[in-house]
Amino acid sequence: MKKMTLFVWMGLAGCLYAAESDRVEQWDFFELALKGPSSGNPFVGVEFSAVFENAGKRFEPEGFYDGDGIFRIRFMPDEQGIWRYKTRSNYPELDGKEGRFICTPPTAGNHGPVRVRQQYHFAYADGTPFFPFGTTLYEWPFQTEELKKQTLETLKQSPFNKARFLLIPPWKEHYVTSPEKLTEFPFVGTSRENWDFSRFNPGYFRNLEWCVRQFRDLGIEADLIIFHPYDDGKWGFDRMDAATNERYLRYVIARFAAYRNVWWCLANENSFMTHLTDADWDRLFQIVQERDPYGHLRSIHNADRIYDYCKPWVTHVSLQYYMAVRYLGISPMLRDMYQKPIVHDEINYEGNIARRWGNISGEEMVFRFWSAYIGGAYATHGDCYGTSEDPTWISIGGKMQGQSPPRIAFLRKIVESAGGLDPIDYAYETNIGGRAGQLYLIYFGREPIRQWTFRLPKKNLKEGMRFRAELIDTWNMTIEPIQEIFEVKPLDAYTFTDKNGRSVSLPGRPYMALRLQRVD
Amino acid sequence: MKKMTLFVWMGLAGCLYAAESDRVEQWDFFELALKGPSSGNPFVGVEFSAVFENAGKRFEPEGFYDGDGIFRIRFMPDEQGIWRYKTRSNYPELDGKEGRFICTPPTAGNHGPVRVRQQYHFAYADGTPFFPFGTTLYEWPFQTEELKKQTLETLKQSPFNKARFLLIPPWKEHYVTSPEKLTEFPFVGTSRENWDFSRFNPGYFRNLEWCVRQFRDLGIEADLIIFHPYDDGKWGFDRMDAATNERYLRYVIARFAAYRNVWWCLANENSFMTHLTDADWDRLFQIVQERDPYGHLRSIHNADRIYDYCKPWVTHVSLQYYMAVRYLGISPMLRDMYQKPIVHDEINYEGNIARRWGNISGEEMVFRFWSAYIGGAYATHGDCYGTSEDPTWISIGGKMQGQSPPRIAFLRKIVESAGGLDPIDYAYETNIGGRAGQLYLIYFGREPIRQWTFRLPKKNLKEGMRFRAELIDTWNMTIEPIQEIFEVKPLDAYTFTDKNGRSVSLPGRPYMALRLQRVD
Repeated sequence: MKKMTLFVWMGLAGCLYAAESDRVEQWDFFELALKGPSSGNPFVGVEFSAVFENAGKRFEPEGFYDGDGIFRIRFMPDEQGIWRYKTRSNYPELDGKEGRFICTPPTAGNHGPVRVRQQYHFAYADGTPFFPFGTTLYEWPFQTEELKKQTLETLKQSPFNKARFLLIPPWKEHYVTSPEKLTEFPFVGTSRENWDFSRFNPGYFRNLEWCVRQFRDLGIEADLIIFHPYDDGKWGFDRMDAATNERYLRYVIARFAAYRNVWWCLANENSFMTHLTDADWDRLFQIVQERDPYGHLRSIHNADRIYDYCKPWVTHVSLQYYMAVRYLGISPMLRDMYQKPIVHDEINYEGNIARRWGNISGEEMVFRFWSAYIGGAYATHGDCYGTSEDPTWISIGGKMQGQSPPRIAFLRKIVESAGGLDPIDYAYETNIGGRAGQLYLIYFGREPIRQWTFRLPKKNLKEGMRFRAELIDTWNMTIEPIQEIFEVKPLDAYTFTDKNGRSVSLPGRPYMALRLQRVD
Repeated sequence: MKKMTLFVWMGLAGCLYAAESDRVEQWDFFELALKGPSSGNPFVGVEFSAVFENAGKRFEPEGFYDGDGIFRIRFMPDEQGIWRYKTRSNYPELDGKEGRFICTPPTAGNHGPVRVRQQYHFAYADGTPFFPFGTTLYEWPFQTEELKKQTLETLKQSPFNKARFLLIPPWKEHYVTSPEKLTEFPFVGTSRENWDFSRFNPGYFRNLEWCVRQFRDLGIEADLIIFHPYDDGKWGFDRMDAATNERYLRYVIARFAAYRNVWWCLANENSFMTHLTDADWDRLFQIVQERDPYGHLRSIHNADRIYDYCKPWVTHVSLQYYMAVRYLGISPMLRDMYQKPIVHDEINYEGNIARRWGNISGEEMVFRFWSAYIGGAYATHGDCYGTSEDPTWISIGGKMQGQSPPRIAFLRKIVESAGGLDPIDYAYETNIGGRAGQLYLIYFGREPIRQWTFRLPKKNLKEGMRFRAELIDTWNMTIEPIQEIFEVKPLDAYTFTDKNGRSVSLPGRPYMALRLQRVD
């Protein structure tokens, strides 16, 4: 089906608009291309959208100008069947064009966009749970073809199913002066002296879309960072005026929203963009909420001042607060505060650079991951071996050098096979996550513990329930069954214990865990 | 001045309304009493307020029916000079009454109501900083005269300058069946069978006002808990309908708002009142915001679901989350999240009861206090020696038995002499609070540390600044000067160190701290 879509999409520039026989698989996208006005500035003042309808469902995505006189409109159908559409525009050549296409079943590996599931978790639109295990690749779209391909090869072997990257490059000396300096920018122009902020550069966005498609085809969610403060006014992309910000945001939505694997991250470290207030961010969030017909996930990533994630247009928390994963028990508090999924999207990076945000050990990175997941939250990795100016993976991609990724893969298997983790009795027992009464992960973190007295929070337990146990070495990635079967009885107002008062022996190493699973 | 006010207040029931010569000190209150309608139900349907004006300032507090045909209106002037008033009512006998009074300077110890200061802190209206050191006395107003007096005697000797208590008693067996059973309730009636929720019991509220006045005269802020879930439907005060809740709230505001030492706590463990949604709490907050002319501090105290303290009508955070003080470094995160003062109003209680929320050690209580204040937040104490059914101090008052209060007094002196603490470089250095460049408290918590290498976050430091040091034993309450003077120089991208590379020796006990103060 990908080929078919691509054909429709590639072919349309020529045939002007789609024929009735077009077929698109569910959660892929239909694209319509129309010849429109090319005189003046087609990026401004042309209203162009289309209503898509199927059995009472109705969407109205916005179109966008793609250069060379061509306007495109993309639509991601969420139901199979026949969809009819009709365009609307203030220009006659773009208005009233009608047609239809058939939406066919999704092919293997296409589960649709990711949504919030059960308040604190995620699932694809087809109901398949999605457990985010993120990584960070801020500038990978702005690298050479060769490097981008290497990044994709690395990702293919990695545990990561979500990656965060910037839609606008950060200003860096070598992007301006090196032989591989950037030649394409979001706006028409070559430098701060001559940007035309009223005209986008379609070629620039096509590259970003290629990146999103590569991720889609690898099963990786593209967490798109729309604004960022890493320009210091040098290009000026971090301090555009409100009208430009809004036009840019709408253009991004029009181009990207039809990709099922898109997440919106309004900004990285938003409070460092000091000219934008929380009210400005409210407005930008509302634009995304209004203009994205599919309701892709929406968040914003903080620096010091933390945006109020309780606001209704925020779907999940994308937090940078290292302390919150340095200790067990804080993620549950964040869940209670925000009543939404918690994604610790920056927890420092594994690496060796001189900056303290980029030199935690592999052990510490894996500890912070476990801390997040045991608390019913999610985390994002970063690999930062290189120099302060050019830490490799998190900036440009390529290869990772850290020791955490295989351990994160190991954790991912454990979380997925558990069907997800929630904290249990979390105001007191911070190191236990799982599903009360069914499955428990008891994580001992840095403590080189030698013995664990069988004791579980009472929630959902009944006398006589039996559990098998496994010893997990989270660093050496081993799971070792324990022969005994434990049977629980009430101990006190809060806990159950083994009826024979047994304990579990541990090897006295750090980073161990136990998994208990009910057998009857 | 207290006498004068009391005279005006006591005398008015007789003389019907105040004479022009009345004098009231600033932030005390003027009270007007008028004979009004007593037939029908004077609690419902009588609109009664007064406009108070002075040099362009204008307040319009609501009055209340106090029984026996008397309506009262109270007004706390915030400026000295002549205030003129005129009543408004839908009843002629309460309408259009005019007069004036003179507001005189405040007497010693009267600093006015407490406000938010510098975003994360508090000050009295006269600018004097207020550093909350709270305690918990949920049910003390409902005890015998003798016990209440003992409670006040205990408070007089204590470090506590804020206390939390309930305006409605929790349902407990002995409040219904014991010889000291309760005889006065907020509403007319004696039991669930015969409450008249449309009629308040003025005598019940006079007792609560006595409690507030006693606190005021001891310099203690009265953190009034307006609603709570501790009734289980037995009296039904926890599940009154929306109209009753609103009427009760307005009555409370009309009676209590003129007391300068009042803080509003909308509810304790609000999410346990399962019939009230966050939208209901929004509405109740808005009523307080609209009806309290003085803008007393407003918060709500959580159980599991945490109300969004970012909402504009919340002045400060009143949090129950034990984990947030079990670790250093979480309070700064809460400041960044809420952008408001953080008060950890429940951090478990020092005690010996079987319930785990009431049996932490004195050491742990003191640790949690230090954890809060080092992070730029505040905390509230509780003493829970007794039985689970009747833990003494936190429920009924009387005497405290724990070991933490003198240590909290010791901390209070340190915080006050520092002029307050803020976190410094808090994303990485969690155990340092103070005022960057001037004063540092470095708290070692449970770590029995033997040596501290002189190292401070760079913020506000310049090469050559010199510091004297003191060794603080937070448990044994000693402060010991260290002879050397340290002089700083930059060390790396984040820190300064002593230019001679010196360290400070510590005794290898837990709960130690260092205080560094700039000498030039």
